[in-house]
Amino acid sequence: MPLLVPDFADRTPKGDTLMRQICNHCGFVAYQNPKVVVGSVVRHGDRILLCRRAIEPRKGFWTIPAGYLELGETPEHGALREAREEACATLELKGLLAVYSVPRLSQVQLIYRANLRDGLHSPGEESLETELFRLDGIPHGEIAFPTVHWALRHELMVENGEAFAPFSNPPGGSTGDHP
Amino acid sequence: MPLLVPDFADRTPKGDTLMRQICNHCGFVAYQNPKVVVGSVVRHGDRILLCRRAIEPRKGFWTIPAGYLELGETPEHGALREAREEACATLELKGLLAVYSVPRLSQVQLIYRANLRDGLHSPGEESLETELFRLDGIPHGEIAFPTVHWALRHELMVENGEAFAPFSNPPGGSTGDHP
Repeated sequence: MPLLVPDFADRTPKGDTLMRQICNHCGFVAYQNPKVVVGSVVRHGDRILLCRRAIEPRKGFWTIPAGYLELGETPEHGALREAREEACATLELKGLLAVYSVPRLSQVQLIYRANLRDGLHSPGEESLETELFRLDGIPHGEIAFPTVHWALRHELMVENGEAFAPFSNPPGGSTGDHP
Repeated sequence: MPLLVPDFADRTPKGDTLMRQICNHCGFVAYQNPKVVVGSVVRHGDRILLCRRAIEPRKGFWTIPAGYLELGETPEHGALREAREEACATLELKGLLAVYSVPRLSQVQLIYRANLRDGLHSPGEESLETELFRLDGIPHGEIAFPTVHWALRHELMVENGEAFAPFSNPPGGSTGDHP
């Protein structure tokens, strides 16, 4: 069992230019870096796979399979892993659809296009349910995050030949805040 | 002054599935995440801006202006900042050229296309020199990293209309190791 409780102060390390969290016990510098989110817009014929979130933030709202990239992982492997964990789904990736940034959360999101290999899906631990929605049946009023709206719209634009992937944040979308 | 020295052990926190670095003094979990590198292929007419590195790794070799994204920064702002820091250069970004991953280093790289606004450049603290190279004068034998080779090649492919940006790692390039 540890003898002490964590005790960090914001200070600028020698030779650095920004404030970092430094341990008052041992001097350890807890550098923080932006986080990479990887995910997929998953197609099965004319349908799109969405997951209803079982966890906060935005519990009960619908999202695409996505999560944090782990150390040593390629973004493609991370996107496949997240679909397996959140929707028990096996994907075939088709390429990068979009790169979004959410500086408020220090996030960079890499979103891939994918097909569901065998049509099978079911909720993993972080999902209440998973469902293949027809394009005209997507629950636009119950989507979890702005970047999910963007990714669904960009997927249809690529499919219709209106644009080439990938996209970055749409105009005015630099914060990634909820609309 | 801290009374102790840092002392971390690799253990799996409760409720987690991966080993993390945990402080033996206070139980602090030092989560590590993949790092995001942002950079630019910078054009000035028919020339390309490169920086000769003043620091390891690959000190003395040529690279494009690039570095780690900071917390709260958009990738575009990060790419502009790195060009300012490493080459005292002011850029106009033209859009995302490529997304590369180097899982061996747990890196995701976002590389932009850019123009040098006024033709001015000079070495910042991390550069020995900066130079605008003609396309047929690029020092291909003295390039610092594989991703710099890829970015230069992809820039010319986009310029020649052979492909649409962005690209991801070329075939066999998943490790990002030196060739």
